[in-house]
Order: sequence, then C-alpha cells, then structure tokens
Amino acid sequence: MTEEFYGYAAFSKESGLKLYSYTPKPLGDEDVEVGISHCGICGSDLHTMRSGWRPTRYPIIVGHEIVGKVLKKGSKVIDFNVGDRVGVGCQLQSCRKCDECRMGYEQLCAKKVFTYNDMWKDAEGNPTKYPTQGGYADKIRTHSDFAFHIPEEISSAEASPLLCAGVSTFVPLKRHKIGQGNKVGIAGIGGLGHMAIQWAAKMGAEVTAISHSSGKRDDAIKLGATHFLNFSDPEEVEKFANSQDLIILTSFNPHTDWSKCLRLLKNHGIFVLLGLPEVPLQIPPFALMRDVKIEGSLIGGRQDVKDMLEFAAKHNVRSWVQKVPMKDVNEGIKIMLDGKARYRVVLEN
Amino acid sequence: MTEEFYGYAAFSKESGLKLYSYTPKPLGDEDVEVGISHCGICGSDLHTMRSGWRPTRYPIIVGHEIVGKVLKKGSKVIDFNVGDRVGVGCQLQSCRKCDECRMGYEQLCAKKVFTYNDMWKDAEGNPTKYPTQGGYADKIRTHSDFAFHIPEEISSAEASPLLCAGVSTFVPLKRHKIGQGNKVGIAGIGGLGHMAIQWAAKMGAEVTAISHSSGKRDDAIKLGATHFLNFSDPEEVEKFANSQDLIILTSFNPHTDWSKCLRLLKNHGIFVLLGLPEVPLQIPPFALMRDVKIEGSLIGGRQDVKDMLEFAAKHNVRSWVQKVPMKDVNEGIKIMLDGKARYRVVLEN
Repeated sequence: MTEEFYGYAAFSKESGLKLYSYTPKPLGDEDVEVGISHCGICGSDLHTMRSGWRPTRYPIIVGHEIVGKVLKKGSKVIDFNVGDRVGVGCQLQSCRKCDECRMGYEQLCAKKVFTYNDMWKDAEGNPTKYPTQGGYADKIRTHSDFAFHIPEEISSAEASPLLCAGVSTFVPLKRHKIGQGNKVGIAGIGGLGHMAIQWAAKMGAEVTAISHSSGKRDDAIKLGATHFLNFSDPEEVEKFANSQDLIILTSFNPHTDWSKCLRLLKNHGIFVLLGLPEVPLQIPPFALMRDVKIEGSLIGGRQDVKDMLEFAAKHNVRSWVQKVPMKDVNEGIKIMLDGKARYRVVLEN
Repeated sequence: MTEEFYGYAAFSKESGLKLYSYTPKPLGDEDVEVGISHCGICGSDLHTMRSGWRPTRYPIIVGHEIVGKVLKKGSKVIDFNVGDRVGVGCQLQSCRKCDECRMGYEQLCAKKVFTYNDMWKDAEGNPTKYPTQGGYADKIRTHSDFAFHIPEEISSAEASPLLCAGVSTFVPLKRHKIGQGNKVGIAGIGGLGHMAIQWAAKMGAEVTAISHSSGKRDDAIKLGATHFLNFSDPEEVEKFANSQDLIILTSFNPHTDWSKCLRLLKNHGIFVLLGLPEVPLQIPPFALMRDVKIEGSLIGGRQDVKDMLEFAAKHNVRSWVQKVPMKDVNEGIKIMLDGKARYRVVLEN
C-alpha cells in the first residue's frame, strides 16, 4: 500500500495553497516520523512560494517551524520514543562526518537536506527521487539527528517558531558571546526580531529595537528592549549614530539605506544579515572602513538548536504567537503578507 | 619671516599638478620636520585629486608614502635626531588617549589628522587654520608619533610604498593571524596587491594571485604566489570556487562581479575590502549565507607600521618601484592612470 502524507501546497508562483497528497520517502533505520501539531509561518516560506530567491520546484509544501509527536521510528533510533514531543526545523539530514558537521555547522554540510524545496539525498550525497515537503501538513519524516526534544515548559505553539526564527536569531548572539556591557541593535520587529530582542536582553545586553515606525514601540519594550529607535526619524538616527556593537538585520526592503544602518555601528562593529532581500545589497564602501564587518548567518547547527531550546526554557523566552487552524493556512499567510502578525502566525492541526 | 614649503598641487578636479607653495603649520614641541627624499604615488592620491570619493579642498598636495630625513625637531622629541631617516604615512596626528588610540587603532581616533585633505587639529580636536598637505613636496611636518624609523636594510625608494600600500595590506593578514595552512587570495596585482602577495607568502600561506588577465602571471609567481587565477576565465574561476580562507580585494572596477569574487571563499571565509570603489558594492545577499564576512580595513595603527617595517626587513619584503623625478610628477601619475606601474611609481627629489 502506498503511503500518503497530506499537506497544503503551492502549485505556482501566484496560486494560493491547496490540499495535496504525496508519497513520503520510506522511513529509514535512523529516521522518525512526526505527526505535526503546529507549524509556524516563516518569511522564507513566502519567498519560496513565490520563487523570490530562486526558482521553486512546484508543487511545494513549505513550513520548517514544526512541532509534533513521534509516530514511528526506525530500528536504530535510540534518542526518541513513539509519543515524544519533538521539533523539526529547516534541515532534515546532513552527512555528520565532514568538517562542517563536526564543527557544528551541519547547515553548511555539502550533503545537507533542507526541509522543503530540496531532494532527499543518498549516502553519497546524490539526490534521490524524493523531494522534501515541509510542515504545512499532517506528517513529516526526518533523520532523527534533526529532531529535537522540546522542553516541557514550552507549549507546542510557542515552541514551533523557535525551530527557525528562534535559532536563527540566537546563533549570531551566541557566536559573538553577547552579554552584559554589549549594545545590540535589532532592526525589524517581526517574527525574527521579536525573538532577537528577547535573547539579547536575557543575555544581558542593552538592546535597541529599530523599526521603520513607532507602532511597535510598546511591544519592543515589553520584549526587553531598553531603547527604541524610529528609523524614519533622522534626529533619532543621529542620536544613535556610532552606538551599537552588533546589529542584527531581520528585515529590509528594496530601498533600505545601508549607509544609514551601518552608521549605527560603533567602530569595529558587526552587522549580521539574517533577513535575505531578493535584490543585491548596496553597500557604500566607506561605511566599512571603520573595521566594520558584515556577515551572513544561516539558521544554526544541531548544538545551536539544543542550546537555544535550553536557554528559552531557562530564561522564559517565548515566541508571541497567533494560532490559525491548519485548514485556514491561506488566511494565515495573508496575515503575514499584510504585516499584521504579532509576531508569528502558527498553524495548528 | 614666513616659512614656505614647496610642492606639486592639484588646483581642480581636471588640472594637472603645478608647483605651489604654502605656509606650513608652526613646528610644535612634539613635531618633526622631514626633508622629503621619496614619495610613492598611491591610488588614494588619484581618487583625492579628482574628488572621486568626496569633494576635495583645492589646491591640494597629495602623497602619503613619504621617506626623508629629519631636518628639525620640537623640544620634546626624544625618539628622533636631526638626520634620522624616517617614514611618514597616511596620518600625522591622533589624540593618543582615546580607546581607539590605546587599542592601536590611531587611524580611527576621532581627532586623527590625515596627511592631506584634512585640517590640523588643536588639542580639543577642533580644526585649526592649517590644512594638511602631502608628500609631493620638499618638506612635511608631522607629530613625531607618526614618524617611523626605516630599517637600514631597506632603500628609501623601496621603503616609501610601505607607509601606505605596505601597512594597508599587512594589517588584515596580521589581524587574522595568517600563516601556514591558510589559503589566501589576493585580488588585483598592483601597488597594494604586489605587497599583499609577498606578506602572505612570507607568513607561510598558500597564495593565489587573482587578476583580470594573465599578463601579470610571471610577476605574481616571482612575488611568491603559488597559484594564479585569471578571473576572466570562467573555467579557472570554477576550479578555485570555495577554496580561499581569506581574500584581500585591492582593486575593482564599477562592474566587479561580487558574487563571483565571494564564491572563491570557503565557508567561514573573510573578504577584506582594501581598494575603495567610488560606487556602492552590489552584494548578492545569498553570497554571505555561508558564515562569510566582508570587512573593511583602513591602513593601520602605529604598532602595525612598526611591525610591518620589522617584518619587511627580516623577510626581505620590498616594493617593486619605478623611480620618477619629483619634477616629472605628472608623468608619474600618467604611468599610474595608464595601469603601467610595475608596481609602484615613486617620486624622487
């Protein structure tokens, strides 16, 4: 009997999502099958559905902020039991042997398999015939290395955004050992930014939330920001010039004034690019001539996810979520597209 | 009696250089006056003469790769005697008290004074009435903190390019502790690049010289490169994809393909921007999503200059120079503009 998983798929750039069934790859010895209870809607999902970054293989089921319960496990799986609550993020597999995997950068492994818009790979890293399909669905299979126990303290809806938005924002702060005495700017207060403000504040940093209007000022302060900078107000921008050790950019638009962003950094400052525009960045070269660095950061590795979940449980960091029934996925997407999410829409089965 | 210094000045964007005299700032207690024997022609000189980066204050005497002998010294100067051979680079003064100065980043001091196109500042950092004028001249005055003893082994002509091209290329390699086991790409083989290749090779790195044609292949190998990459050949570029730990970009043009440059870096690689385009960099955001960093580097601090001169003497690193009489400065500039310098034109009094 052919197995079938059900999910909501995009069939072209322009289409809304429709119910779709597909044959999952066979459950491997080291895999788990997860019955999905929750899946967050991430900006990457929207970029991918509209082929914004690169051509997408349709039909596609997106979603990589997944929480659910283990329904089945392969014969060699020892870390999980059927019934365990687990999270699944942006990645389903890596080789676990290369330098990247050994350094904890599984997301850069040449044989990595992303949760959607990718193909399952065999042991040699060659694509199989099974495309990966994401979490706007009833079930998903993953190598058990990329399933993560969710701490009891965190509800499933609140946990799901941690698997992408959470870890993506946690990693640059962890990597640069942010703590007391650091000044951190978080540009963009959305799905990513509202997590980043919390991490940085709980790590002890003095946080400046940076937004294009003052609409989210109160929320930013509740999330832990000490300062709020309305980036549309030249006087405020002037006041914050040369003030930040590290800035995480979580959102952007094609007209983002990179020079103005970079001015907020102190000399020797670090500008972390998390949000990925669909157009090239226009960097005025003099803006870097103060020993300023721009770096990209892509989600996180296995240990990063574990550290992040532990930190969230211990320091009471939670995603602020709006729950939407899975069947109303198109409505959930509309909330995101309209910029009305406060701050993460989570689909619920 | 009014003192007069003589040099070759640009009077507008378009003009050639003409003899010009100006009144130098009075010699301070901690200053030295240097009789200039040699001055290299740096790319920054050309950008500044044509107001390429920002408006220039005319008339201007450029030149910040200066070697000469101490003619006079202030009463508090103890490190130098009249007759000492010294070098003067891009900077004439800093406060020596702020965090930047204490960390050895005097070039980022808020009270810094650049060698030309700047104003001398008083103790509070306010501009005085004395503009700074550079080394295409007979004499220059500098705070003695920014004069440097030239090691005996190095001729004055060969030493002068070290004061800007030399230190600018040495610093990112020093800062990132480049040595054996590292793969370093040097993009652009000119005044900066021909120094960078030598430093990196002498530090023990495996160096790839990167150029837009194969014309400089033999020179690059002589300078110490292990590999030569003709950047116009797509097959060669493909072969070097994902291969370098650090790339120093020393030259560029408005059509530089940043994506192609960044592809040469390994994951976690560092791209150092030394050459400064007059137009914004167009960075495709995905190019950074491999934990890749872009950073700017601006000349170096006092300790950097000293370390660089010591390294050059010890490891026999020398600029390859073409000497041109100071009075033929316009001819020297033409050699640079025509791209015919191999690899630094040095003016000689």
